[in-house]
Amino acid sequence: MSKTAAYAAKSNDGKMAPYSIERRDVQSNDVQIEITHCGVCHSDLHAIKNDWGNSKYPLVPGHEIIGTVKKVGSGVTKYKEGDTVGVGCLVDACLSCEACDEDLEQHCLGQPTMTYNSQTDDPGGLTYGGYSQSIVVREEFVLKIPENLDKAGTAPLLCAGITTYSPLHQYGVKKGMTVGVIGLGGLGHMGIKLSAAMGAHTVMITTSKTKADDAKELGADEVLVSTDKDAMQKWAGKFDFLLNTIPVGHDVNPYLNLLKYNKTMCLVGAIEPLANVNGAMLVTGRKAVAGSLIGGLKETQEMLDFCGEHNVVATIEEIKMSEINDAFERMQDNDVRYRFVIDMATLD
Amino acid sequence: MSKTAAYAAKSNDGKMAPYSIERRDVQSNDVQIEITHCGVCHSDLHAIKNDWGNSKYPLVPGHEIIGTVKKVGSGVTKYKEGDTVGVGCLVDACLSCEACDEDLEQHCLGQPTMTYNSQTDDPGGLTYGGYSQSIVVREEFVLKIPENLDKAGTAPLLCAGITTYSPLHQYGVKKGMTVGVIGLGGLGHMGIKLSAAMGAHTVMITTSKTKADDAKELGADEVLVSTDKDAMQKWAGKFDFLLNTIPVGHDVNPYLNLLKYNKTMCLVGAIEPLANVNGAMLVTGRKAVAGSLIGGLKETQEMLDFCGEHNVVATIEEIKMSEINDAFERMQDNDVRYRFVIDMATLD
Repeated sequence: MSKTAAYAAKSNDGKMAPYSIERRDVQSNDVQIEITHCGVCHSDLHAIKNDWGNSKYPLVPGHEIIGTVKKVGSGVTKYKEGDTVGVGCLVDACLSCEACDEDLEQHCLGQPTMTYNSQTDDPGGLTYGGYSQSIVVREEFVLKIPENLDKAGTAPLLCAGITTYSPLHQYGVKKGMTVGVIGLGGLGHMGIKLSAAMGAHTVMITTSKTKADDAKELGADEVLVSTDKDAMQKWAGKFDFLLNTIPVGHDVNPYLNLLKYNKTMCLVGAIEPLANVNGAMLVTGRKAVAGSLIGGLKETQEMLDFCGEHNVVATIEEIKMSEINDAFERMQDNDVRYRFVIDMATLD
Repeated sequence: MSKTAAYAAKSNDGKMAPYSIERRDVQSNDVQIEITHCGVCHSDLHAIKNDWGNSKYPLVPGHEIIGTVKKVGSGVTKYKEGDTVGVGCLVDACLSCEACDEDLEQHCLGQPTMTYNSQTDDPGGLTYGGYSQSIVVREEFVLKIPENLDKAGTAPLLCAGITTYSPLHQYGVKKGMTVGVIGLGGLGHMGIKLSAAMGAHTVMITTSKTKADDAKELGADEVLVSTDKDAMQKWAGKFDFLLNTIPVGHDVNPYLNLLKYNKTMCLVGAIEPLANVNGAMLVTGRKAVAGSLIGGLKETQEMLDFCGEHNVVATIEEIKMSEINDAFERMQDNDVRYRFVIDMATLD
């Protein structure tokens, strides 16, 4: 066991404060990582406020972790001291069920262990996340980070990146396709960058005209303002794929109408009920509404390699650890372009 | 032009009566078919009652047509007099758009011509369907019927058969998979037969215990009664594919819960709004709700060949043309196992 400095929520008041946590000793297949950066995901805020009813305190959030290997166990073969590595939303899974065999550890039938607030053999019975100086993770759940990428900008790839890459990849997005990314936040801005890097004609679909310039800077070829009925009609039946990053329940039918026959809209944000989905549109257009959740380890590594090749990182605002409570407030006001990343050197 | 005997609805009172219609002369790529059997589809009843608001009278329904080639145009190469052939829901499409190029004529971007109540160059400006002694159809929309199949039982394959075969086929149903067919009517009974013939472990999912014996006779390996909460819990996460044939809007969430991670439920009946689709279940389970509409010509021929190979036909009740109005009443009362087929020799 080793004590390390972290920031934790002690209750559901939404506030983080310095905290000293224990990390397990390095076992034979473990990698000890000195964390240099950690992205701030909206789910971190949900967790510290116990919005989903399953939070246990003290809670150290953070699952967009970048760092440097400090020590490896005797059985570790893929990593050595000094390597730049990452850890995303998962730190363990059974690795022997049908889902794990298909490289979909996020759907592990034995329940994957999430990076924080999840039952584990780690000290304390719960995992602690990346708002911390260090973390110890079994080798299979550690990812290689391409050396050419900016470390701070790479952190959000571990959650926002894979969450958007996975559906774009599953649905075969490539040159020649017209792809719509709905919603311009932490997920949406990665969706635009990745879709554009895959070569698709990428259209940002947003309720807000003011986001048009930003979207184009991020790589969108065009912007479709969803409150403009004429524009929505003009684009009806034109999309080969829609990545829907809206984080709340909403009327999906105007978006389904944008899809070509035989195509899919994939949700990555809306985990609330969707009212009155138009069954006729699904049936008569052979369309689908699908969902997608992060990605498995193999696909996450593929995504990182793809980003290395195409030099894709998140657009971020770097903050000090002590600024985290302000950052959460700004996040609630949608005042972030497009992801906060904590410079972990600022944590003492 | 040739006059031929038919049954038509003259208004939306839901009644059919004898009628004399004109069929176009046989053009160079036309096939003239003497109709021997026509299946009675629920959409025939919707059409004659103008339930969808687009019916034009007189309306001759019927798009599950089996017959014998009587005459072919000079350019016809695939058919000759005496062949047993079929016609389904489509009689024309542009055959040059992206959808037609993908063998998805049902999604023709130039609007496909449906077998009845659809604009055409046919006499009268509207197509007339199969409740008739004969029909003239361009060669590309005529299907070969395997000679070993019972003609009357084959008629419903042209709509109910392809409607259920297409999604089972699209989603790769095969031996080793567990497939649920939801709802036991005209579509559901074909779904069971086809899923079983494809080698899948086939589970009939129904609200009605009384249908269990019937379902097993049709080929279901097991029956899951959806009102039995314990049984629904036992089957949670067990299905590789769900074919949902329920013809009205309904709560799809209990069925989505039956799917394994990363799997799809495909709707073929519900063309009404679906209330409160659980976005969280789609996202966290990487699941999808899709729809499917009949099938293209190529896939319809594949389905017929598959049925020929596996000796699959619909379970039907044969009626005389004069019994059609009673048949519609019984259909409204769900009193049909599982499809009425008109013996067209009874039409004078």
